[in-house]
Amino acid sequence: MKVGMIGLGRMGGNMAERLRRAGHEVVGYAHSPVRRDVDSLPALVEALGAGPRVLWSMVPAGEATESTVTELAGLLAAGDIVVDGGNSNYRDSIRRSELLAERGVGWVDAGTSGGVWGLDNGYALMVGGTDEHVAAAWPALEALSPGGGEGLAHVGPPGAGHFTKMVHNGVEYGMMQAFAEGYALLEASELGIDVPAGLRSWQHGSVVRSWLLDLLVKALEESPGLTDIAPRAADSGEGRWTVEEAVRLGVAVPAISASLFARFVSQDDDGAPMRAIAALRNQFGGHAMVRLEAQEPKDPIDPVHPGQAPTGEGPK
Amino acid sequence: MKVGMIGLGRMGGNMAERLRRAGHEVVGYAHSPVRRDVDSLPALVEALGAGPRVLWSMVPAGEATESTVTELAGLLAAGDIVVDGGNSNYRDSIRRSELLAERGVGWVDAGTSGGVWGLDNGYALMVGGTDEHVAAAWPALEALSPGGGEGLAHVGPPGAGHFTKMVHNGVEYGMMQAFAEGYALLEASELGIDVPAGLRSWQHGSVVRSWLLDLLVKALEESPGLTDIAPRAADSGEGRWTVEEAVRLGVAVPAISASLFARFVSQDDDGAPMRAIAALRNQFGGHAMVRLEAQEPKDPIDPVHPGQAPTGEGPK
Repeated sequence: MKVGMIGLGRMGGNMAERLRRAGHEVVGYAHSPVRRDVDSLPALVEALGAGPRVLWSMVPAGEATESTVTELAGLLAAGDIVVDGGNSNYRDSIRRSELLAERGVGWVDAGTSGGVWGLDNGYALMVGGTDEHVAAAWPALEALSPGGGEGLAHVGPPGAGHFTKMVHNGVEYGMMQAFAEGYALLEASELGIDVPAGLRSWQHGSVVRSWLLDLLVKALEESPGLTDIAPRAADSGEGRWTVEEAVRLGVAVPAISASLFARFVSQDDDGAPMRAIAALRNQFGGHAMVRLEAQEPKDPIDPVHPGQAPTGEGPK
Repeated sequence: MKVGMIGLGRMGGNMAERLRRAGHEVVGYAHSPVRRDVDSLPALVEALGAGPRVLWSMVPAGEATESTVTELAGLLAAGDIVVDGGNSNYRDSIRRSELLAERGVGWVDAGTSGGVWGLDNGYALMVGGTDEHVAAAWPALEALSPGGGEGLAHVGPPGAGHFTKMVHNGVEYGMMQAFAEGYALLEASELGIDVPAGLRSWQHGSVVRSWLLDLLVKALEESPGLTDIAPRAADSGEGRWTVEEAVRLGVAVPAISASLFARFVSQDDDGAPMRAIAALRNQFGGHAMVRLEAQEPKDPIDPVHPGQAPTGEGPK
């Protein structure tokens, strides 16, 4: 089929390539002139010819996706389909599906996982939309998935794909934190454990074998002891949304929230909580605290604006 | 080689079978008469003939392992090797290695993972001991591992194998809890998500693909909605040891400890913390609380005695 790919970054560029390898015709548009086939959304819609057209948006969640969908709403006709493969908030996806539905334009939210490995391995795709719209985009979805019907599922109505992707990323936060804590314990032992060998022994036959473990082993091969990596972990917004949804739904997520908060602590150069603890210990017990030169109070961590991925990261 | 297998339960029995399939001669002893080749430890040592002999202990951690090692210390001779494949506390393993060393008997602690699947897939083995003793047991270790040098590592001195297995299980707690929380969020969504389909879409190409995810998909096939399973998760002691070690070493393990505590909450039929919260809300705000008929105060959750797996579970 013919697909219009919007956004040709690390994800969109590789996905266009994977679609072409599968025999689909891809017309690519990106904000930046590098590698694009057309130089505007109207030119893209024009290049796709008579409908129904399938437009795949692979731009960052938030403003970029919002303006893309809004512009497409004015360009497309009944029967066309917009697929959002980005890491959008599922509530935005529901709203956008309704906006497009007013013009008879279809909507598919395709939560996408697979990172830079997806070009060759295929992407896991969690798909929301009506049966009709998902069927219309199916050939492209199938070509992007690992194949054989694997790693691809229509999970529910509009928004369900991005909700499932959000939860996927929340689970990812918990798994990564569990491995990080295990790694730290192995390193901290006085027994002088061969940590890379220990982690490698888990890769086959063990209960914790997983792709993230494979990546940790690889990272330690490339950087023994990870000593050249700053101990600071960014978060791309989906972890925050997962915890926000858990609070809204009244579902306890102690491991995922602990994992998210551990990243916030790593981002916190200001250290307000531990300055407060040190001050209180000093107040009640006279315990020593390290005195710094007094400074202007700093801004707290940037809050997240709902619907925006705060670091501008695309899906991975 | 010739191996004496002590304990022929789900783990030991399968391991004896896997060793035999690889061409090793196994003499099996178990407390229970079922399937055993000899009826006592002295008879087992006798049956293995002239040394050096390799004795593999696959009995529950704690008392059973302690009495096995103590009895073996009186039966074995210099050059023989005792391998503990159970989920022993690594500090007990260090102590036992020293006890046996006094008689010239070698020691290998082989943390073992793989559960009931190990018979066919092989077991992940994390091995502690001196180079000499590990080398003496290597043919058996290799036969039990998945093969090709995979899933098998000599990670350090005596105790290092069981330390690494303890951490492995701690990581397992965190991963399981992360998947459990993600599962609960998907189920709780008002969108009517096809949860099994969503989880299946993660199995290929996604960042969270893992054996535990595969098992969750399988569990949901066997029990849709898991509605016939009581919401109560046991813990087998290694999670507790992991958190105890983290406290001793001063390593923060927020996700693993949250996962362990979530299991404790599931085990707590008494509900003291939430009775206290309800009482306090009533005290300061007059908030409603559900009155029960007063009962005798119950015992708290059974404490763990160091060195004992509280539920008597063997390694998995």
